[in-house]
Amino acid sequence: MSKPCIICVAITGSLPRKSDNPAVPVTVAEQIESAQAAFEAGAAIVHAHVRDADQNPTSDPERFARLKEGVVKYCPGMVVQFSTGGRAASGKDRGGMLSLRPDMASLAVGSNNFPTRVYENPPDLVDWLAGEMRAHAVKPEIEAFDLSHIFKAAEMNADGRIPGNVYVQFVMGVKNAMPADRAVFDFYIETTKRLMPGAEWCAAGIGANQIVLNEWVVAAGGHART
Amino acid sequence: MSKPCIICVAITGSLPRKSDNPAVPVTVAEQIESAQAAFEAGAAIVHAHVRDADQNPTSDPERFARLKEGVVKYCPGMVVQFSTGGRAASGKDRGGMLSLRPDMASLAVGSNNFPTRVYENPPDLVDWLAGEMRAHAVKPEIEAFDLSHIFKAAEMNADGRIPGNVYVQFVMGVKNAMPADRAVFDFYIETTKRLMPGAEWCAAGIGANQIVLNEWVVAAGGHART
Ligand SMILES: [Zn+2]
Ligand SMILES: [Zn+2]
Ligand SMILES: [Zn+2]
Ligand SMILES: [Zn+2]
Repeated sequence: MSKPCIICVAITGSLPRKSDNPAVPVTVAEQIESAQAAFEAGAAIVHAHVRDADQNPTSDPERFARLKEGVVKYCPGMVVQFSTGGRAASGKDRGGMLSLRPDMASLAVGSNNFPTRVYENPPDLVDWLAGEMRAHAVKPEIEAFDLSHIFKAAEMNADGRIPGNVYVQFVMGVKNAMPADRAVFDFYIETTKRLMPGAEWCAAGIGANQIVLNEWVVAAGGHART
Repeated sequence: MSKPCIICVAITGSLPRKSDNPAVPVTVAEQIESAQAAFEAGAAIVHAHVRDADQNPTSDPERFARLKEGVVKYCPGMVVQFSTGGRAASGKDRGGMLSLRPDMASLAVGSNNFPTRVYENPPDLVDWLAGEMRAHAVKPEIEAFDLSHIFKAAEMNADGRIPGNVYVQFVMGVKNAMPADRAVFDFYIETTKRLMPGAEWCAAGIGANQIVLNEWVVAAGGHART
């Protein structure tokens, strides 16, 4: 029996607006509709960001609550994953929606550069977010923007801050962070297997990198993202 | 003819005080004396941090100037490398001493976590520091705290922001950044050679890691640090 490949759909993404692509779902109603279409096409996880009335990223728990409610209603069994990324809010506001008990949430465990700024995930915030996820039975998806983030996840797994088998996402193609490099991708997998033998992994590529990463990750026994 | 191994001595380090170890040189006079002792023992580069009157890290150009003057006088031919690290100052103050034209200066090209905070090296500051180094003919030593920093150095080398053959230091053993891991060390070298065939490399290990890294790096054809 072959191992199933999990497809995660990132319906909205952290930044795009209607002016970038009119098909981007930005209202909660559009997002539920979009999640349902992907669910019916085979996606098992919906990775969710929400937008305010001006289409700007927000961590507003009320919007996340309505989104979760809609996905539960229209996509029975679909895994709901909330983003706790730093574009929508800063500090503990990034995790204010974790008490809604989504099935999963993204968790950055280190800091790195983004195209024009520092993506700040200070150690105490990482610990706080991980604690909130444990408290609300939320499974983290570790966002590995660089190699040391895999080591940090393994450390947190070993001491119980990230319980159970770790789910890691390799993020590649972000300017000023890690490019989509095949040798690095292979080393990421090798390192993940070595440090966390029970881990599962997927990969997110920025823009045109996603299709390349999906080929690599599926061939390597990982999970895909669209 | 075998290739010489360059020994770089970090006489003061970024944080230690007399209360940690009475032998740590904290005044400029002590630092010059310490550099001279290392120079006579075979060190070719002095990696320098300066301290204020309370032994706190500072980027005070006046102290750096006196230190450089002393090293030039008592250690003829020794390469002077100033730290532009983020513990002594923030923003452009970190590079205020570059106009003193040290032979070399450290240059972080990415961000990462430190034990209790984010080590912030935003892209525009990295570019500004690299520009100051070019303007004053200062050779950068790239501080690679994580794998993506090697890619960033290669990118900056390719477009001329870091001219010539790149000198990279792998920094390992910093809590919440990259641990001293042998497989990563080997991959760092492999990646450096692949992306920057003309590069030279050395390694800095925090505390007890230094002696381990020196064994690894010298055996691999790199340069040592004490
Ligand atoms: Zn996301
Ligand atoms: Zn809570
Ligand atoms: Zn230093
Ligand atoms: Zn200048």
